[in-house]
Amino acid sequence: MATQAALFAGFSQLAAQPARDRAGTGAPARVGMAAIGGARVGGVKAEGAGWAVARRGVLCRASLIEPDGGRLVDLVAPEEDGRRAALRREAASLPHRLRLGRVDKEWLHVLSEGWASPLQGFMREHEFLQALHFNAIRGADGRMVNMSVPIVLSLGDAQRRAIQADGATRVALVDDRDRPIAVLSDIEIYKHNKEERIARTWGTTAPGLPYVEEAITNAGDWLIGGDLEVIEPIKYNDGLDQYRLSPAQLREEFARRNADAVFAFQLRNPVHNGHALLMTDTRKRLLEMGYKNPVLLLHPLGGFTKADDVPLSWRMKQHEKVLEEGVLNPESTVVAIFPSPMHYAGPTEVQWHAKARINAGANFYIVGRDPAGMSHPTAKRDLYDADHGKKVLSMAPGLERLNILPFRVAAYDTKQKKMDFFDPSRKDDFLFISGTKMRTFAKNRESPPDGFMCPGGWKVLVEYYDSLVPSEGSSKLREPVAA
Amino acid sequence: MATQAALFAGFSQLAAQPARDRAGTGAPARVGMAAIGGARVGGVKAEGAGWAVARRGVLCRASLIEPDGGRLVDLVAPEEDGRRAALRREAASLPHRLRLGRVDKEWLHVLSEGWASPLQGFMREHEFLQALHFNAIRGADGRMVNMSVPIVLSLGDAQRRAIQADGATRVALVDDRDRPIAVLSDIEIYKHNKEERIARTWGTTAPGLPYVEEAITNAGDWLIGGDLEVIEPIKYNDGLDQYRLSPAQLREEFARRNADAVFAFQLRNPVHNGHALLMTDTRKRLLEMGYKNPVLLLHPLGGFTKADDVPLSWRMKQHEKVLEEGVLNPESTVVAIFPSPMHYAGPTEVQWHAKARINAGANFYIVGRDPAGMSHPTAKRDLYDADHGKKVLSMAPGLERLNILPFRVAAYDTKQKKMDFFDPSRKDDFLFISGTKMRTFAKNRESPPDGFMCPGGWKVLVEYYDSLVPSEGSSKLREPVAA
Repeated sequence: MATQAALFAGFSQLAAQPARDRAGTGAPARVGMAAIGGARVGGVKAEGAGWAVARRGVLCRASLIEPDGGRLVDLVAPEEDGRRAALRREAASLPHRLRLGRVDKEWLHVLSEGWASPLQGFMREHEFLQALHFNAIRGADGRMVNMSVPIVLSLGDAQRRAIQADGATRVALVDDRDRPIAVLSDIEIYKHNKEERIARTWGTTAPGLPYVEEAITNAGDWLIGGDLEVIEPIKYNDGLDQYRLSPAQLREEFARRNADAVFAFQLRNPVHNGHALLMTDTRKRLLEMGYKNPVLLLHPLGGFTKADDVPLSWRMKQHEKVLEEGVLNPESTVVAIFPSPMHYAGPTEVQWHAKARINAGANFYIVGRDPAGMSHPTAKRDLYDADHGKKVLSMAPGLERLNILPFRVAAYDTKQKKMDFFDPSRKDDFLFISGTKMRTFAKNRESPPDGFMCPGGWKVLVEYYDSLVPSEGSSKLREPVAA
Repeated sequence: MATQAALFAGFSQLAAQPARDRAGTGAPARVGMAAIGGARVGGVKAEGAGWAVARRGVLCRASLIEPDGGRLVDLVAPEEDGRRAALRREAASLPHRLRLGRVDKEWLHVLSEGWASPLQGFMREHEFLQALHFNAIRGADGRMVNMSVPIVLSLGDAQRRAIQADGATRVALVDDRDRPIAVLSDIEIYKHNKEERIARTWGTTAPGLPYVEEAITNAGDWLIGGDLEVIEPIKYNDGLDQYRLSPAQLREEFARRNADAVFAFQLRNPVHNGHALLMTDTRKRLLEMGYKNPVLLLHPLGGFTKADDVPLSWRMKQHEKVLEEGVLNPESTVVAIFPSPMHYAGPTEVQWHAKARINAGANFYIVGRDPAGMSHPTAKRDLYDADHGKKVLSMAPGLERLNILPFRVAAYDTKQKKMDFFDPSRKDDFLFISGTKMRTFAKNRESPPDGFMCPGGWKVLVEYYDSLVPSEGSSKLREPVAA
């Protein structure tokens, strides 16, 4: 479909621009934005997009919600004035180098583009403590910005001692092949109490939390915070970089489309027609509220996910089909990748998911049942109460400007043969198709009920699960060795 | 000592007044108080106590810090208009009765006198979630008040079903002999996820947390919140009720003394001369800042404590000696009991300790090393970083009006033979006498170094530990039965 192709192509052009430029272009959108995001749903008033005269008489675009802290953070060294080259030279010569793991690098990416604005780097202790205890950090102006998950970098005791013995204030951050990525300056080293961090972030210390096993259990016993400067924009070279739009690029795209409302949909699963229904329904509701051009940010998470989630590349193929087949309207939809890793920390994490989207220009956030939730790793129940996510989100400090749109539950209506909002008055007509059930269909090459998902999207999923079927040899390799 | 005796006697008279009266008398102190508590130490300006003309032209007392939410909560039914008798009749006739445990009753006491203002009763779910996730609750006016520990009441599944089957909206709360104490109305029942509550409150789920074992492990799987109305002021009839001053009574006492600054010292241990030094030093610093009459609230915690803490009655005897022997000046000291149970939840709990004292009129709060801390129940280390308490306290939402006074560490100066502030330049001269060391001295009837504690106070401790020495018979009883 031509429109959809154009949409995706447009992004690659944007992605090719240097980061500093992008942030610069996005900047004028900061003035006069509070009006749109100031009220919760119900109290929201329509606000025309376009151009308005600001108090100082400068003509500037009044449309998108203001980033947290007032200014979108951009930590990538500018190419223009030789800063990038100088930083690269310095990073190569610094005596202390910290090697980043996969998740560390994803957080560095997140920080560098300002998703966590106003954070200027990995958290120092006062930020870490505020995130853990209050899910919010007080800015220089005294106002609280939301910040519910710790964004921290760990190091081991030997390296800690070496850095402190030298009295070093700057360290280089390098990738898995020791290539410098960034410099962390004005560093602060403090203890990494893993148990306390896990308990306060997840509300459990049960073994088996995916993020904990991936990024905490084997991490160092110290944390290092500081101001981050990244040598160049982070790229993955996996064929998906054109979808990795920074908050500044997204703001630019929303402005280009003259969006007067941006509603974000965070997801880490394939899009079925129930999702699509609630996204199109949300747009309808926003139009009814008086908005002229609400734009959907369909925003799959691109960082670390647990082993049984569908990998990003397959999800992107599936999302592409959903737009190609017209389930979502490409004219009013922007598809991009959110580079954050996944915590699966339910009510704590959903705040991060929402807060980051404010920085990308979204003033409406769709929240469903049990956001960022999963099964309890050891008990036979969900880890979080399915309603706590939206409740906590609606009360969270620092998210007052964001309009929370709670999901209406969609299910398969066997009478109408389509996904529709659940109607309790004829509940027997509805079929709830869980992720597990969906996986079972796809694995067994069964078709889901007609109208559950667009055919092209479903085909992608079947291909994915096909690709997983182990050959005789690999199957043996996967089995645990008998003792 | 006459002055001291008068001080203590004065409280019994106050305690005899009906609660509603007391709250009424305390009320004028609300107007125009923000000036004193508005700045942190360093930025604090002297502010004369006494009488000031408020904006509307009414003559009112401008002195004490405003309670959280603007109005000191008083949940005790007034005697005057027959309300108390009516409530007693209703409570006796209500079909659903919840029996309170020891800790439940202590929280009911806390709530009834407004220590947790603006809470109007045991927490409903939205308050519980905010306490757990944000350590603060947003009031009706949109402002955040600090509230870091959940104040909740649990019930079992059978009782939950019975209440919900009846559609009851009011339940009676009764004591261990089924005597009605209060009515909880407009009730809300929600799930008690103990694991999540414990993890988020303590930052650990390790077995052996004293409050958890006392009040959570065997509690019901549901929580019930609602508006509380208490039939009459809570009394313990243990000879210590005259020290249990409500926030309203304390405010009245501070006003009577024309205090222009109130600094609170929370403790659950005997007072040694190091504590005394920092309290007298604090007063000196406040006088230097320009305050004319700073008053100390020496405020031992009176609710549940762990088994190896010195019991309240012995601590009160010890504190009495400290004032009698002139270690603290009775003229500028108010000794009263804080009725809260102890969580031992470190940085989370210290916020509660501070917040409650705002409601009692304190605008300065002394905080030391590892407040509300204890040893990790299973690992060989302290549960909390010793500095986190004061750091978290100084950043906590809702405590902006409170001036935090971090402890300077006092130790025994072997050269001067007295407790003094630790001087790192001659660190070998100092002896740190831990609680454990102190207990060992007292148990073995050894004297601590001269000048560590006033002799009368020390004698009380020796008597207490003497009273614990088991007779041959009881010693055998205390030993675990061999398997």
